[in-house]
Amino acid sequence: MDVTVTTAELAGAASALVKLVPGKLIDPVLAGLLITATPEGVALAANDRERAVRVHRNAVVHTEGRVLVPAKPLADTLRALEQEQVRLVVEGSKLAIRAPGARYALPLLDADVHPGVGAAPAVAGTVDGGLFASALATTVLAASRDDALPMFTGVRVRSEDDRLIMVATDRYQMALASLPWHARGEVDALVPASLLNELARQLPAGEVTVHADRDRFGLGWRGALATTAVLDGSFLHESKIHLSDVDTVVTTDADALAGAVRRVGLYTDARGVLLVEIGDGEIRLRGADSKAGEAEESVKAGVDGGRTGQAYQSRFLTDALRCFGGKEVRMEIQPGMRATVFSAVEPTEPTVRYVVMPMLPPK
Amino acid sequence: MDVTVTTAELAGAASALVKLVPGKLIDPVLAGLLITATPEGVALAANDRERAVRVHRNAVVHTEGRVLVPAKPLADTLRALEQEQVRLVVEGSKLAIRAPGARYALPLLDADVHPGVGAAPAVAGTVDGGLFASALATTVLAASRDDALPMFTGVRVRSEDDRLIMVATDRYQMALASLPWHARGEVDALVPASLLNELARQLPAGEVTVHADRDRFGLGWRGALATTAVLDGSFLHESKIHLSDVDTVVTTDADALAGAVRRVGLYTDARGVLLVEIGDGEIRLRGADSKAGEAEESVKAGVDGGRTGQAYQSRFLTDALRCFGGKEVRMEIQPGMRATVFSAVEPTEPTVRYVVMPMLPPK
Repeated sequence: MDVTVTTAELAGAASALVKLVPGKLIDPVLAGLLITATPEGVALAANDRERAVRVHRNAVVHTEGRVLVPAKPLADTLRALEQEQVRLVVEGSKLAIRAPGARYALPLLDADVHPGVGAAPAVAGTVDGGLFASALATTVLAASRDDALPMFTGVRVRSEDDRLIMVATDRYQMALASLPWHARGEVDALVPASLLNELARQLPAGEVTVHADRDRFGLGWRGALATTAVLDGSFLHESKIHLSDVDTVVTTDADALAGAVRRVGLYTDARGVLLVEIGDGEIRLRGADSKAGEAEESVKAGVDGGRTGQAYQSRFLTDALRCFGGKEVRMEIQPGMRATVFSAVEPTEPTVRYVVMPMLPPK
Repeated sequence: MDVTVTTAELAGAASALVKLVPGKLIDPVLAGLLITATPEGVALAANDRERAVRVHRNAVVHTEGRVLVPAKPLADTLRALEQEQVRLVVEGSKLAIRAPGARYALPLLDADVHPGVGAAPAVAGTVDGGLFASALATTVLAASRDDALPMFTGVRVRSEDDRLIMVATDRYQMALASLPWHARGEVDALVPASLLNELARQLPAGEVTVHADRDRFGLGWRGALATTAVLDGSFLHESKIHLSDVDTVVTTDADALAGAVRRVGLYTDARGVLLVEIGDGEIRLRGADSKAGEAEESVKAGVDGGRTGQAYQSRFLTDALRCFGGKEVRMEIQPGMRATVFSAVEPTEPTVRYVVMPMLPPK
């Protein structure tokens, strides 16, 4: 193999792969990066048997070939290079990375035992990458990071007519987002949130294809394709919110309320619970901790209804309000220990609703 | 006590104190912040029996007084506040922090058992704050972080005629910096590098007073005064470098060499040692690790002398070259296991020299 590539393009592709497929340290082959040079250019691929990602880049191909090298040293070296062009060439049992005045060489791993990336599931539909990234960034906030209950570590991605709906919950909070969906088929999959979180950072604007079959879920964009095994979704989340008993609706500036939550949140007990009291044209936040002291702050709000208050964990309020930054937010409060629903007063795409469960107030 | 203060000013002062005196968690009094309101304004002070810091700010003082409160919650609250003015007022057993629409209250600690800050040692001289901060940021790089050998965790600060000289070493590397000194007396103290590192971030441009007596060292600037107990300096560092045997002098662009060290440093063994070979009009860096692969990079250089090479830990080279960013650097290489000295080809204030010990080359 012998190819010449623009350094920044190849460095970006290698870094993207390393982030999407962090690699299992135990097996160097699965921590490897498969480079395939064909007349069409160069393809980088990684597969840890759960996630499989392939990225294509243009290249001047002097000699075709297929090699497997350690992924992280390759990505680190390419990222640190300042020269505009870089040449990858097999020299004996090494892959040499050559740039003017510099030569780095990585050991070749056995490419024949690498599983490759395989064909993608069929295209189920397409979405706009920018809106999808925004919707993913919102929903992954509500997913659990506790691997002991895998089903709560996923985001349910489901098509319904002309909308793609995403739902995630860790049982204490739930996020729902939806955006326009250009259907070619259907999708209903529980996808690991950790991968979607990274994809939310990488997805460009423009068309993104959504791939799905019974066992796998994938996204394709601009010469890149990422697929993953889906989680067991037989116990699927509900994606409709039933509000039976809303007795108070509050509207306020999301950033102003988030600022107050951040400050009063400094004065909470070990559970991080603060009191939200609904007053006359204002929300009053209260925190108290025997050691830290006590805090009280008021934020102007439109209030409709007679409810007096509710208690929440401050970090859930912070996550919920972050989804509506720069906007007016509506809180629909139900009595007792029923959920409170946050939504935008003037919704934009992707539409988002965030559900937070109340807590018992501090004693 | 009842005072009104500009929030940003008081928040900056409280944060500065918390960073300079991180506080011992065991004793809440020593983790406290002493606030004294007098007709001249408000003074914040902290003292953990090793470090003592006092900062003065203008304030509208409605009622004089002196209180002790937990330092970190106060600093966190003030930093998070968005209102322009803040009022501190004693209410019963609490200090209330009041701003429009908000009230926070911290428990009062027993101010009478707080040691206060005490008088500063006499002024030994003055320096320019900007130059001093730059010289400190450079020298603390070479100080040890290993508290088992306290004398290597300090920077020796010593006046000599019209220069103030700073030296630090962890035995593998040594940094020397000097800057103009306006003497009113003398100073020769071994000062904890961790405090100087923080002071390097906080010192403003303009005149800084240097205070010293047998047991304490201090700096004063714009209404602020920070003092610390000095380290045992009876085994003092040498602040002169004896170069007996320089056989090769190399000059090159510090940033270009630092970039090459960063890249080739990815290909080193567990000790992080790379080879520096002196060629004809170039420096060649080589790294090799049986697992990671091998690397070689050349950087253009002026070479005077016939030495062929030396091996160094890449992180020491990185630290040394960082001191000369944007400049041409001179490397004076001695044979065998003798030190290599880095200096600027065209020195500016503060003048800096950095000494790196060579290592045995990788096998």
